[in-house]
Amino acid sequence: MGHIGKQTITFDNPPIITCAYASAGPKEVQGPLGEYFDNKLQDELLGEDSWEKAESKLIRQTVQGLLSKANKTPQDIKYLFAGDLQNQVIASTFGLLDFNIPFFGLYGACSTMGESMCLAAMTVAGGMADLVMAGTSSHYCAAEKQFRFPLEYGGQRTMTQQWTATASGFVLIGNSGTGPKIQAVTPGKMVDLGIKDTFNMGAAMAPAAIDTILTHLEDTNQKPSDFDAIVTGDLGNCGLDIAVDIANKLGTDLSGVINDCGKLIYDDAAEDTHCGGSGCGCSGSVFAGYFYSQLIKRNIKKLLLVPTGALMSPGSTQQGHTIPGVAHAVSIVID
Amino acid sequence: MGHIGKQTITFDNPPIITCAYASAGPKEVQGPLGEYFDNKLQDELLGEDSWEKAESKLIRQTVQGLLSKANKTPQDIKYLFAGDLQNQVIASTFGLLDFNIPFFGLYGACSTMGESMCLAAMTVAGGMADLVMAGTSSHYCAAEKQFRFPLEYGGQRTMTQQWTATASGFVLIGNSGTGPKIQAVTPGKMVDLGIKDTFNMGAAMAPAAIDTILTHLEDTNQKPSDFDAIVTGDLGNCGLDIAVDIANKLGTDLSGVINDCGKLIYDDAAEDTHCGGSGCGCSGSVFAGYFYSQLIKRNIKKLLLVPTGALMSPGSTQQGHTIPGVAHAVSIVID
Repeated sequence: MGHIGKQTITFDNPPIITCAYASAGPKEVQGPLGEYFDNKLQDELLGEDSWEKAESKLIRQTVQGLLSKANKTPQDIKYLFAGDLQNQVIASTFGLLDFNIPFFGLYGACSTMGESMCLAAMTVAGGMADLVMAGTSSHYCAAEKQFRFPLEYGGQRTMTQQWTATASGFVLIGNSGTGPKIQAVTPGKMVDLGIKDTFNMGAAMAPAAIDTILTHLEDTNQKPSDFDAIVTGDLGNCGLDIAVDIANKLGTDLSGVINDCGKLIYDDAAEDTHCGGSGCGCSGSVFAGYFYSQLIKRNIKKLLLVPTGALMSPGSTQQGHTIPGVAHAVSIVID
Repeated sequence: MGHIGKQTITFDNPPIITCAYASAGPKEVQGPLGEYFDNKLQDELLGEDSWEKAESKLIRQTVQGLLSKANKTPQDIKYLFAGDLQNQVIASTFGLLDFNIPFFGLYGACSTMGESMCLAAMTVAGGMADLVMAGTSSHYCAAEKQFRFPLEYGGQRTMTQQWTATASGFVLIGNSGTGPKIQAVTPGKMVDLGIKDTFNMGAAMAPAAIDTILTHLEDTNQKPSDFDAIVTGDLGNCGLDIAVDIANKLGTDLSGVINDCGKLIYDDAAEDTHCGGSGCGCSGSVFAGYFYSQLIKRNIKKLLLVPTGALMSPGSTQQGHTIPGVAHAVSIVID
């Protein structure tokens, strides 16, 4: 295992992402990537009586779907790495409980897909498990209720605001089988540039995304053009522009290669989502749905996935705190 | 790396807990373990204007104290594994932000010390870092406000209730140096026996603690008497009795060897804490303060530390959910 650079781990035996499965809500299915989601939800409640329970069911369906697609049982999975946006990551608790898989609960805000994939890859590459699962979810209605306003309030959304995706993505990562390989990971530092506007999360997360991307490039001695795509998670349209600007000022041109899961998931004009998508389920489902299939088809052969999270709670905002960001990079290749 | 049994990892090159540091509030310092805490707080606010900010400062002091005690700088630490009880683990965010160490945010309720030590040990044992940090915190006033009632309300506490410790414990785990070694870890499954009483968390957590302990013993082909101490985190007095009963019914007598961080931290009669301590900071500080020093002095030479968490949120309770438990075991030895 190479201790390359200050933050990055490169794997001598790169773990394999052997299977991926994505679920998405009706609004996400209407978007440009709709066809790539394995499980297309008909509504946001999934037959439950609360948004919170609906998110747990969304997770349950996604994990069950992944196991079926890979022809595996829960007993085949040694550990599960997952988290969500609900307080005390409770959606994951009740979504994953019945599978009886040893569970690491994570909280990285919208960076959680990156965090879970980093830890899963490290566990497999370290020889500590043959097969593990990583994933995340978010639910628009549960997130609005918890972080902003109840939907019934009908609050006006600002133009910099993003739309929390109702979506979930899970992947299997193992030491045998076929599929794209995780070549290296760069777990990120928290970066705080003093943004306090909870309706402009993209601005809060952009510095962390760039910090992690530039660190990854430096640690691994690569340049942006070595990747077919560098894809942040959920910066949204405004945040992505800011990220490109920051990188430019630091002397790195990412403009030709960078994209963002939050920018890709909706048709903002037609779907009135303003600044794109967010929520851990956004990068989770866009990777497990769209990008995984692009890797399998060799349309993309080398991808740097960089899910990004805005670290805040309603309480921290009320107490005058800033919103630090965090981003974890996962370098994925296929021959 | 041995893939022993269904859940356990045994380390061929056991990572070393090279240093530990514990902070504790005034009530915890008055308890039987008071002398073992490195940082004895004078009050619960630490000069801040909110309980939440006080918890972040508690974390900051603990990490700074650990770095000083070990004569290390933040640049020496490759990754940081931590979490707390506040929504969106925000106490850890603002407590750890300024150290600029790549950060994995965790949520395992009061099992977080076990979760962070498992992941830290796996990272070092897998050859992915030379030195990492793991830890957790909790704050009585912040937890009461968030999970139960604001302190000003003066709510009557039930006799099965535990007292969330104002405390924090962090450890350094590395591949060189001296100190107790982490021989094996058993990350736990979520176990739900249907408890719904949020004022009786010990009962909710006991089945998970026993599930993890018995799995560890089975996976490693050991018996309880192979350990000098098996120490759960925060079952409290009632929960510990229930745990011993459950183990007995399953054919394993733990009565002579098991103890609990929540039972040890307070003098319940003198301090009116009812059923003992809880909160991630309880097992965090009792391990980093008391048990680490007992290992260094060879009063205990083999310890199974099993921090236990109750997986609930105020929202899940209001929506009628049960309270599953989770427990992660860390087997620690010193020659």
